[in-house]
Amino acid sequence: MPSVPQWNSNLKKPNLYGLHAVREAWLNEDRIVHALYLTHMAERQFEEIALQAKTMELRRPEPIIIDKAKLDRILPKGAVHQGVALACAPLEEMDVQDLIIRTHNNKRSVIALLDQVTDPHNVGAIMRSASAFGLDGLLMQTKHAPALEGVLAKTACGAIEHIPVAYATNLSRALEDLREAGFIALAMDERGEKEIGELNLDGKVVVVLGSEGTGIRPLVKKKCDVLTRLPTGGAIASLNVSNAAAVAFYALTFSPKS
Amino acid sequence: MPSVPQWNSNLKKPNLYGLHAVREAWLNEDRIVHALYLTHMAERQFEEIALQAKTMELRRPEPIIIDKAKLDRILPKGAVHQGVALACAPLEEMDVQDLIIRTHNNKRSVIALLDQVTDPHNVGAIMRSASAFGLDGLLMQTKHAPALEGVLAKTACGAIEHIPVAYATNLSRALEDLREAGFIALAMDERGEKEIGELNLDGKVVVVLGSEGTGIRPLVKKKCDVLTRLPTGGAIASLNVSNAAAVAFYALTFSPKS
Repeated sequence: MPSVPQWNSNLKKPNLYGLHAVREAWLNEDRIVHALYLTHMAERQFEEIALQAKTMELRRPEPIIIDKAKLDRILPKGAVHQGVALACAPLEEMDVQDLIIRTHNNKRSVIALLDQVTDPHNVGAIMRSASAFGLDGLLMQTKHAPALEGVLAKTACGAIEHIPVAYATNLSRALEDLREAGFIALAMDERGEKEIGELNLDGKVVVVLGSEGTGIRPLVKKKCDVLTRLPTGGAIASLNVSNAAAVAFYALTFSPKS
Repeated sequence: MPSVPQWNSNLKKPNLYGLHAVREAWLNEDRIVHALYLTHMAERQFEEIALQAKTMELRRPEPIIIDKAKLDRILPKGAVHQGVALACAPLEEMDVQDLIIRTHNNKRSVIALLDQVTDPHNVGAIMRSASAFGLDGLLMQTKHAPALEGVLAKTACGAIEHIPVAYATNLSRALEDLREAGFIALAMDERGEKEIGELNLDGKVVVVLGSEGTGIRPLVKKKCDVLTRLPTGGAIASLNVSNAAAVAFYALTFSPKS
């Protein structure tokens, strides 16, 4: 039977919430889990997931049953938690060499580099798309990357457990490393000379996306092999960065079955 | 010289904010504008846009200069207004027949139907992508469509001035009308039998997207010709609805230049 303690400061503060985000973390053997908080309403919904973790012989704590109002209070205001929250350790951080090693034996590989994209909703949606289109990883700058928790994790819908994330203090140098390892660096840029669908890319690609306000920084852009654009036009020709990322991931991973 | 009145209840409440959203509405000859609010900081930024409206001989009021703090107060909490807000009349509403007439002479046409997608961020991003990929219109249900203002308009980045939006009380019947007018109805569905890139669609297409929680409602789906999916896979195979829409719009409008 799950225990029903009073909330007190000895209890670990949850950093993940929402059914999908928590389920995927709960079932990720690389996650160290400190505490699971469930409302009565969510308890039943989680039963099957708890059972699954048992089958996988994961070390998981007993769930703590908590009032919805209390859960509202300990999570950020307006958090859409669906009655489920988790306190867990962050996943191990990777660097660019880890991504290079992981993709070493792949003939084809797509990874994404986010140059100071800081909005957690956008980064979360990008992680979700990266996972769905089977990308091999995501690279961000150590200093300007949002934490992989909270609303980002909620938006990613569990993808933060599945897409390898690496950090670099210097993204220009990381791009050099990737190019030396055989990656072609593609900068997504509205003024790019080639449309993404016209590129005939085999092999390994790192697709570089900048923040919506300022785009890719010049020093990062200079390290790219090709500036490429999406086939957009009209008065509002640019897309939201997560939408642009999704289209790029699709265009780069799609292979027509003919 | 712009006037600097005290804020009072005679002043129209702004329904649009953010530089892009307000600029596009200000320059849209179909918009009736009641009042423009600018902070001192934003006044200069808007000069060129004001001038442009004059060249176009648009009837526009003198801007009202307002404190940032006051603007914060009269807009929804947390609104990223960039010192710019507009009170204007809504655009004229269209119905499905209007979309059919507008596209009558087109050989190719793509329009999007949103079945109860209610999140204003998502609908705003979808409108932005629809505009960027040159779609001919958007169709929503009268009852379950978010208002084309505020955060939706901000997220759409001005696209609400450019993409025709129609409403129908009954989306199943609207789909019938579209099919009678020669449109092929495509339902985006994770369990679709065909990948979107494998469809060889010429002519007119209406692409149907459902809400993230529940997807397309059965009665609407039944009216579609094809259920189609994106080439996604893995543990997190589904995309955020605005990302799925962007990929679908790309796939349906892309024509390789060979």
